[in-house]
Amino acid sequence: MVHKLVLVRHGQSDWNEKNLFTGWVDVKLSPKGEQEAARAGELLKESGIHPDILHTSLLSRAIQTANIALDKSDRLFIPVVRSWRLNERHYGALQGKDKAETLEKYGKEKFQEWRRSFDVPPPPIEDASEFSQFGEERYSNVDPNVLPKTESLALVIDRLLPYWQDVISKDLLSGKTVLIAAHGNSLRALVKHLDNISSEEIAGLNIPTGIPLVYELDDNLKPIKPAYYLDPEAAAAGAAAVAAQGQKK
Amino acid sequence: MVHKLVLVRHGQSDWNEKNLFTGWVDVKLSPKGEQEAARAGELLKESGIHPDILHTSLLSRAIQTANIALDKSDRLFIPVVRSWRLNERHYGALQGKDKAETLEKYGKEKFQEWRRSFDVPPPPIEDASEFSQFGEERYSNVDPNVLPKTESLALVIDRLLPYWQDVISKDLLSGKTVLIAAHGNSLRALVKHLDNISSEEIAGLNIPTGIPLVYELDDNLKPIKPAYYLDPEAAAAGAAAVAAQGQKK
Repeated sequence: MVHKLVLVRHGQSDWNEKNLFTGWVDVKLSPKGEQEAARAGELLKESGIHPDILHTSLLSRAIQTANIALDKSDRLFIPVVRSWRLNERHYGALQGKDKAETLEKYGKEKFQEWRRSFDVPPPPIEDASEFSQFGEERYSNVDPNVLPKTESLALVIDRLLPYWQDVISKDLLSGKTVLIAAHGNSLRALVKHLDNISSEEIAGLNIPTGIPLVYELDDNLKPIKPAYYLDPEAAAAGAAAVAAQGQKK
Repeated sequence: MVHKLVLVRHGQSDWNEKNLFTGWVDVKLSPKGEQEAARAGELLKESGIHPDILHTSLLSRAIQTANIALDKSDRLFIPVVRSWRLNERHYGALQGKDKAETLEKYGKEKFQEWRRSFDVPPPPIEDASEFSQFGEERYSNVDPNVLPKTESLALVIDRLLPYWQDVISKDLLSGKTVLIAAHGNSLRALVKHLDNISSEEIAGLNIPTGIPLVYELDDNLKPIKPAYYLDPEAAAAGAAAVAAQGQKK
């Protein structure tokens, strides 16, 4: 049996637009991000792929993206499950900071290390910071000891995999087509796992926003062919734009 | 302990606007309906009532209403459960028919009987009708023998109560504030149960669209005081508008 998995990275948020590090800060989609989500829904509808269940992070921008995309593809009725384990990478003390200013202040090497190294997290955020999620009701059902104050991509993989193994895999193996609406780094973590990408190579992988990425998996949940974007041209342009982020003034 | 329950009836749909019987036909919100949903979210936010979980029907207009209201009240992250048992009353063979034409064709008595009698359902819809939900994927996880082809309000109560008793009650009794986004008749069914309204009196009860109705319940899930709308003036005007429906040309 072929198991279908569709990944969608949320569209532009108010903070992407302002070029700030976001992480777990709960900013909403910008009008452009809403358009990207609508486009994702149209692509899904045209593709004839019908998700049976939706998984999202606990962050509004991923949930908004899913809500808009399912509205456009006439599948609002499917069940929804949310988990902090699908959240964006926690950006530690960088959350709320301007990307260009951070680059200037700490230099290109440190900046790239924090953004793209596999296992070097930024400094942890202080609980008292206005950009900390410490004590937020959103996470009140989660063991506080497991909630991060900063994360590398390696740490994102560590906290994402249990959810993949226990929850999403179960849906796929029971025959459901699964849609995941999440974030640049939580999706990179999943793609690294699914495509068995090395810790070195994953740095160069950029997932474009708002373009559904489709996996067809065998009964061992291994890809039976390379994953494909529903709009390959737009995906290539989008990935290049993501790669250029942080360079711009 | 006081258990809080908030009911929201979806705003205007494309078919409300056209004055057609809708029932289980999956029409979306009109732009006015989206505004009503946004207003519901603002009222929720201003009230300081924080739903911990959302229950919706399987129909898009209720789901859209909830999605918009939770976005406006910054609570998109809460868990969501959907059930056909919260669906609008199935309007049988009237689904897709013009209300004014139906009134003219069958006369005021029959029309009012179908709309407002407690236990007289309209004629059942044919499976082959373009307005039948027979075979719709949306209901593929439900025992087909239990899916209605027409319903009176009495039948709506019969299929709604198991969901109230087994699912929503459990959430309330575990201390959660529950938000239900649903429909004129599924909410009337629930209000009849909660307020112990007689089968005669319920005919005169109209729930306005897009205005949260708040119940405060004791540990036996009985109201400790009359339920209240978050915008009582708008609610009174809205209920009068609903009561006038079908009369208009």
